[in-house]
Amino acid sequence: MDTPLAEPISSALIAAVGRGDTGYALAGRLPEAFAGFAARHYGWNPEPSAARLVPDVMSGIVEILRIISEPGDRVVVNTPGYPPFFYWIERIGRQVVPSPLAAGPDGPRLDLDRLERDFAAGARAYLLCNPHNPTGLVLTREELAQVAALADRHDVRVVVDEILAPLTYPGHRHVPFPSLDSPAAARSVALVSASKAWNIAGLKAALAVPGPDARAEVAAIHEEVSEGAGLFGVLASEAAFTHGRPWLQEVIAGLDENRRSLAAQLADRLPGIAYHLPQAGYVAWLDCRALGWGADPAQIFLRHGRVGLSSGTRFGPPGQGFVRLNFATAPDRLTEAVHRMAIARDRVGDHPRSRDL
Amino acid sequence: MDTPLAEPISSALIAAVGRGDTGYALAGRLPEAFAGFAARHYGWNPEPSAARLVPDVMSGIVEILRIISEPGDRVVVNTPGYPPFFYWIERIGRQVVPSPLAAGPDGPRLDLDRLERDFAAGARAYLLCNPHNPTGLVLTREELAQVAALADRHDVRVVVDEILAPLTYPGHRHVPFPSLDSPAAARSVALVSASKAWNIAGLKAALAVPGPDARAEVAAIHEEVSEGAGLFGVLASEAAFTHGRPWLQEVIAGLDENRRSLAAQLADRLPGIAYHLPQAGYVAWLDCRALGWGADPAQIFLRHGRVGLSSGTRFGPPGQGFVRLNFATAPDRLTEAVHRMAIARDRVGDHPRSRDL
Repeated sequence: MDTPLAEPISSALIAAVGRGDTGYALAGRLPEAFAGFAARHYGWNPEPSAARLVPDVMSGIVEILRIISEPGDRVVVNTPGYPPFFYWIERIGRQVVPSPLAAGPDGPRLDLDRLERDFAAGARAYLLCNPHNPTGLVLTREELAQVAALADRHDVRVVVDEILAPLTYPGHRHVPFPSLDSPAAARSVALVSASKAWNIAGLKAALAVPGPDARAEVAAIHEEVSEGAGLFGVLASEAAFTHGRPWLQEVIAGLDENRRSLAAQLADRLPGIAYHLPQAGYVAWLDCRALGWGADPAQIFLRHGRVGLSSGTRFGPPGQGFVRLNFATAPDRLTEAVHRMAIARDRVGDHPRSRDL
Repeated sequence: MDTPLAEPISSALIAAVGRGDTGYALAGRLPEAFAGFAARHYGWNPEPSAARLVPDVMSGIVEILRIISEPGDRVVVNTPGYPPFFYWIERIGRQVVPSPLAAGPDGPRLDLDRLERDFAAGARAYLLCNPHNPTGLVLTREELAQVAALADRHDVRVVVDEILAPLTYPGHRHVPFPSLDSPAAARSVALVSASKAWNIAGLKAALAVPGPDARAEVAAIHEEVSEGAGLFGVLASEAAFTHGRPWLQEVIAGLDENRRSLAAQLADRLPGIAYHLPQAGYVAWLDCRALGWGADPAQIFLRHGRVGLSSGTRFGPPGQGFVRLNFATAPDRLTEAVHRMAIARDRVGDHPRSRDL
């Protein structure tokens, strides 16, 4: 995000610089800080002593999958999906089973029938991303309960990336998966972090937070892994979860304006692009297939409009013809981005010649 | 180390806090900063564009070993050895081949005969730690040339942890392994970091620096791995390598006094402990075997003297009967540590009863 740091985070970091407190990271009071945030905002009371420090959500997912599954096991991942999921799951010798989201009238939605078929085919784990990157989908309590029921029926372990949860927009409600009342939820592990919401991804800290029946597995995360976290990440995250809510509310208000402004601008200038408001987060998942620009419109926008978007192809096969736009920037910069996209569309038209691709 | 931060590092971090520059890490100018430091202090001119950012030296070692070896391959490691080596090498499915150092009249030394036998038995790689943790041994150019010759003869790839190099004491000279003139050196990869010397291990940044014939393998380190580094680690390390030398010289002068003072104090109060001055770094590798306290004297010192030392047993079998003491602290605290060790010795005596162990 293009934003100054929250004041409580700046203060915590400057104090640490003053102390020369830059050695190896320990979890410190971060688990308690997160538990307080979870209680206040989600009505969830995870046990702080059961949480384990990890460098980031991705490495926490890797650790938990290594502990609860065996090489060759199948791990279900919704597509489009966060690109690092594919790299890291394959790297530890597990098999990614892509489970596409469905296209609904109001945007992407979880396809429970497809999910059940993928579970029934012999999955060991389901890596759920909620709120979802890149679509911004926030699953309801009812949907999550259905996921839990499927997981129980097919003996699938659920690992949940909840990194976007603090960035849920008004009108939607984040429900932590381990807080549900079901065996699958009790056996689940959530990965949480202040990194996306407070814009501190470069400081390196996240937590693995188990349901009540997954504590032993989270405790099995090796201390060598926890030592890979960043001390400044721990200090900044603790400040964020404890004192960072007012700043976050202002940021969410600004992002809310941007996500709506983007809709209006696209409808006006690029009506061929389909866009559903994300329910959380600061990326827009733009369906450009009606432009007829093939699998990777991001390349065309960059080349002909000098505007950088993430290529949808990195998010798995359902991302073909899509781009991801980060709108966590100043309104005039967002307007400029749409303007450049429109320039590219005007130059290239609906059916680009091959040299435009 | 118990020390304030170097001023150039504090300034760089406070400026980053002010900019809100806390997002994902890129290598930035860190490779150039390290190359400048290497040229000035080692007469080595590594190619900056060939270096890859990694979160820390350990994860860089893991990446390189994954690239240059196969599961099941044998990796030679000198013992005593840095404890995380054992965990991570086994974790990626490679086999640790311990190659003990020899005991010389002036302290531990590299045992080239043993090393050759271990290479000849079928090793794929040699993870060399130079300067060596925990003994503080700095290998000479001649020794390193012999290592390179052995590696060439037995087709062993050399990966070198050089994290302690900036902390080499006057009278010794660090020679970067990839700077040697031999095929094994050209095919080697050094892992370097400002983290130990400038006390910023919690900020997470290191570089993998290849010899001229290992560039493709270092380039194969995946960007997902580099993104695990910390941006504050990058910024602090760049400041350290560029402007941090005056601070470091003062620190080394203080550590030099401490390492000598420790020798005098041990000779006076605990003559049963054998200690050779480390040639680099700020840990003392103390041979307590003459006390007759069994494999793990650290436990006895903690219990009976309330002084915390690292257990030598974590460093592999040759660490039995040893402790590692970190002397990067204020002189009076070091004196207090020795005092407490002496109290433990006085209480327990030379032949503790089983209940003291």
